[in-house]
Amino acid sequence: MILVNGHPAVAVNALDRGLAYGDGVFRTLRAQDGRPLWWRDQFAKLAADCAALRLGCPDEAGLHAEVCRLAGAGPGSGVIKIVVTRGVGARGYAPPAVQACTRIVMASPLPPYALPDAPADIAARWCTLRLARQPRLAGIKHLNRLESVLARSEWDDPAILEGLLCDDSGAVIGGVMSNVFWVRNGELFTPSLDQCGVAGVARARLLRAAKRRGIPTHIGRLLPAAILAADEVMICNSVIGVRRVARLDDATWSPAGWTTILNNALYEDVD
Amino acid sequence: MILVNGHPAVAVNALDRGLAYGDGVFRTLRAQDGRPLWWRDQFAKLAADCAALRLGCPDEAGLHAEVCRLAGAGPGSGVIKIVVTRGVGARGYAPPAVQACTRIVMASPLPPYALPDAPADIAARWCTLRLARQPRLAGIKHLNRLESVLARSEWDDPAILEGLLCDDSGAVIGGVMSNVFWVRNGELFTPSLDQCGVAGVARARLLRAAKRRGIPTHIGRLLPAAILAADEVMICNSVIGVRRVARLDDATWSPAGWTTILNNALYEDVD
Repeated sequence: MILVNGHPAVAVNALDRGLAYGDGVFRTLRAQDGRPLWWRDQFAKLAADCAALRLGCPDEAGLHAEVCRLAGAGPGSGVIKIVVTRGVGARGYAPPAVQACTRIVMASPLPPYALPDAPADIAARWCTLRLARQPRLAGIKHLNRLESVLARSEWDDPAILEGLLCDDSGAVIGGVMSNVFWVRNGELFTPSLDQCGVAGVARARLLRAAKRRGIPTHIGRLLPAAILAADEVMICNSVIGVRRVARLDDATWSPAGWTTILNNALYEDVD
Repeated sequence: MILVNGHPAVAVNALDRGLAYGDGVFRTLRAQDGRPLWWRDQFAKLAADCAALRLGCPDEAGLHAEVCRLAGAGPGSGVIKIVVTRGVGARGYAPPAVQACTRIVMASPLPPYALPDAPADIAARWCTLRLARQPRLAGIKHLNRLESVLARSEWDDPAILEGLLCDDSGAVIGGVMSNVFWVRNGELFTPSLDQCGVAGVARARLLRAAKRRGIPTHIGRLLPAAILAADEVMICNSVIGVRRVARLDDATWSPAGWTTILNNALYEDVD
């Protein structure tokens, strides 16, 4: 089922600025037992992304009710996507003086790689596409995702779940659909996302979890060689949690135990 | 009126990848006397942009008929927008194995600044936003236009028609909705668009026209200081033709005659 501005619908106004310009943001979250997982974090990130683009953010209680309506209608677990656009606009890039944002909530089944019996370890590859650096849009999960589409088009081997991306300066940024972390000598590393990339909710939760557990954490400009020298490499997002990267092109790693520790920490609801 | 895949419609499938990811391209062209202006160039650019993103391009004859249907239904002159997206897709960035592209054709009245009695001279400003450099998308008129939205949001003074943009290396790229040209000592200059920006049809026609007239032309990495040192500065697009930039923030220019020469050349249909 799809709700557009709260009403069951299958279509969106052809003049919507989300379609015309990708002028909007979105969230992809997991529903479990008919409820959205990590709702507080998900809504906070949606509100922050809306604020960054000066989009009107939906009312939290109303949006939560819509998400629960869709999560409850499904098989109990699944994926909920929320899209907020700047709504219908006149021709031209200038945002309308009065914005009536469009709010879309849709549900879909869990993808195979997110099912409970999916392998905990995954294979990944390096993408050749280099992400452009736009600090004004960095970290935001906006609707301008052509780079992600191009990157994901680089492979069709179903055994490879994720592609890792660098920016055009050579720094590691993350996966096409996930954030990347790795551990070396007991310390956690993840790329800074102040130039490009999407700063996901799972990433934020994982950083908080590492802090709670006293794991030293480094966020910065990191190069591919650092990943190759890691003891354990992981990707994370809100749908799959933390997964261990067992293979990255020709590089392989044996488990060092961190994925289980961090995945458990990710689901703790203590803050 | 709006045609979606050839049928009158007001809405587009909520699962369209154009909305989800900005996974598509578009054209904005002028209709005159019920016909699309510069159709051959417009279709060639649409086909090239579709090819660059591996999108299926609409059949030319069918698309031309749809454009003429809308152009003929209006007041004779107006703006026609064509959008081609990768169509409805399953969740996830991977392009569907079998693509059924979505084709949208819509008409709107000429904006005030494009009416026959609009001033030939315009005022512009520099935007503070710096365009990110993504060679894989450079030149393409794709649906990922958040940078254009952010740039156009920098001013609301109706006396200023256009904002000029540099990339993050400081090179001039063009206007938010136009390409930029300037003349110095009888030679024509326009920025290279191999890193970012949109290479419009009016720009391509103007470059051909300059060649026909034997005007030496330079396309390259050009800095803002070159514009300030120009004899005459112009913007162009398919809706407004060539317009003289009389003011750019605090800089002003007196007419040197080039805008009229080049605007006339732009509309010659000799090639």
